[in-house]
Amino acid sequence: MNIAILGTGMVGQTLAGKLAESGHTVVIGTRSVSETLARTVPGPFGNPPFKAWKEQHPAIALVTYAEAAVRGEILFNATSGGASIAALKAAGEANLAGKILVDVANPLDFSKGMPPSLTVCNTDSLAEQIQRSFPDVRVVKALNTVNALVMVNPAAVGGGDHFLPVCGNDAAAKATVTEFLKSNFGWKHIVDLGDITGARATEMMLPIWIRLMGVLKTPMFNFKVVQ
Amino acid sequence: MNIAILGTGMVGQTLAGKLAESGHTVVIGTRSVSETLARTVPGPFGNPPFKAWKEQHPAIALVTYAEAAVRGEILFNATSGGASIAALKAAGEANLAGKILVDVANPLDFSKGMPPSLTVCNTDSLAEQIQRSFPDVRVVKALNTVNALVMVNPAAVGGGDHFLPVCGNDAAAKATVTEFLKSNFGWKHIVDLGDITGARATEMMLPIWIRLMGVLKTPMFNFKVVQ
Repeated sequence: MNIAILGTGMVGQTLAGKLAESGHTVVIGTRSVSETLARTVPGPFGNPPFKAWKEQHPAIALVTYAEAAVRGEILFNATSGGASIAALKAAGEANLAGKILVDVANPLDFSKGMPPSLTVCNTDSLAEQIQRSFPDVRVVKALNTVNALVMVNPAAVGGGDHFLPVCGNDAAAKATVTEFLKSNFGWKHIVDLGDITGARATEMMLPIWIRLMGVLKTPMFNFKVVQ
Repeated sequence: MNIAILGTGMVGQTLAGKLAESGHTVVIGTRSVSETLARTVPGPFGNPPFKAWKEQHPAIALVTYAEAAVRGEILFNATSGGASIAALKAAGEANLAGKILVDVANPLDFSKGMPPSLTVCNTDSLAEQIQRSFPDVRVVKALNTVNALVMVNPAAVGGGDHFLPVCGNDAAAKATVTEFLKSNFGWKHIVDLGDITGARATEMMLPIWIRLMGVLKTPMFNFKVVQ
């Protein structure tokens, strides 16, 4: 399939690398191709500048958000939450119309120090803001509740015996994404929370996730629902 | 020990019943003893009116919030989140001073329909509001992330193999509560999130808990942290 990843950070790199490895044709979208390639500082989590990563992944094209939206059959929003709406506007409403957008982003606000708070929560969510701004996009919230390495390889923690909530208004898009996550990444326990308002719940899992990362000293964990 | 439960609803009843059964001397505090005993309608979850429950538990005294605060060595806040500060004011700052208060409450707002939202979250929490309002109380946030029946009997789901986050500013109070929850209810995996601001994270777990309850059609579940 033709997959477009919006966002060049660690999440975008990890998703793109894994999907290209699996045989998909992958492009990564960015605001400015030249600026992204000119960056020389490492990412906030110590990941190399994009250009160094790109050299290891020659099959993955770096393109504008708009070109990524045109080329992708399934799109992943891996931009930072605060930049997501602007990135999607740059991608273009017409280019996005009818496409499935897997919204992986979290509305984290680091401006008030650590741990981050959320820029939107409780009675609204980033995924709902995106769905309202782009009503013709088939938004599916997924993967935002785990670290990038767990997203693409759930078996790396607890043998994959843990859960992934998904939600969205378009049942067919949700079914497609669910199947995609199972067959490409090996997710076993995907739970459909219902419509896109479920993103309030999954984005509000970030605070407990962040505190637990601090306690466990690793991002390699997830939650299993025990009955 | 002398235990005081603030709140006469299902959570208060369940905690009181279990702790009395274990041999503790338990009182339940309420705003008005006569009004609570005069109620004839069942609770919102189908539990019997308090008087019917009380007749089954003759050893448990129903007293005012103030008397409960005086009598309890450890107090549990099992009032509804929106009523917690008023209940604690009625209990009296002087009566509460120095006491351990296990804050079990969640700031759920049912006024805008289902699912409920939170009255406070993200950059503050109910537990922090309580701690700020009563600086001499040793507030420990705990048990608010599970159903009442799971609180007192974690073995009822998944053999008890799931997690309970606790937090609070007073390390000795947290250690006392942790030991209390282990020895009285059988909790095995208690995770200390740090100071009372961790309550933002645990209270913000309510949205995912509520959505999952809807999907699973049961409140008898909890999260296990898988690594």
